[in-house]
Amino acid sequence: MFEKTYTVTGMTCQHCVASVTEEVGELDGVRGVDVDLGTGAVTVTSDAALTDDAVRSAVEEAGYTLAA
Amino acid sequence: MFEKTYTVTGMTCQHCVASVTEEVGELDGVRGVDVDLGTGAVTVTSDAALTDDAVRSAVEEAGYTLAA
Repeated sequence: MFEKTYTVTGMTCQHCVASVTEEVGELDGVRGVDVDLGTGAVTVTSDAALTDDAVRSAVEEAGYTLAA
Repeated sequence: MFEKTYTVTGMTCQHCVASVTEEVGELDGVRGVDVDLGTGAVTVTSDAALTDDAVRSAVEEAGYTLAA
């Protein structure tokens, strides 16, 4: 199992958390998405390593930004 | 047509706006709900006068608070 934590900016409420969780959760191989609204930390667990680009695209699809 | 503007606190993003718009829009007689996220102003137009309690309940159902 792979796990990596990203930082997402722009989330302000639980609706934002739900949007990011949904979009990232739809990526192939993702088993879990844990979001800390206070810090913007998004921890993704997956069956295979994900590319940062794939995660970035999902985050942007939800309307937010992946910190560099 | 009746129109009244309320102030709602706690909305932080467009998801919040959508939630308030939906809940207030479901009240009997409501024809339109206009939300200004920046100020929290929620202007409701309706066929009949609404009670503040009805609007307050809808706002709270959405998860936010009507300013006194």
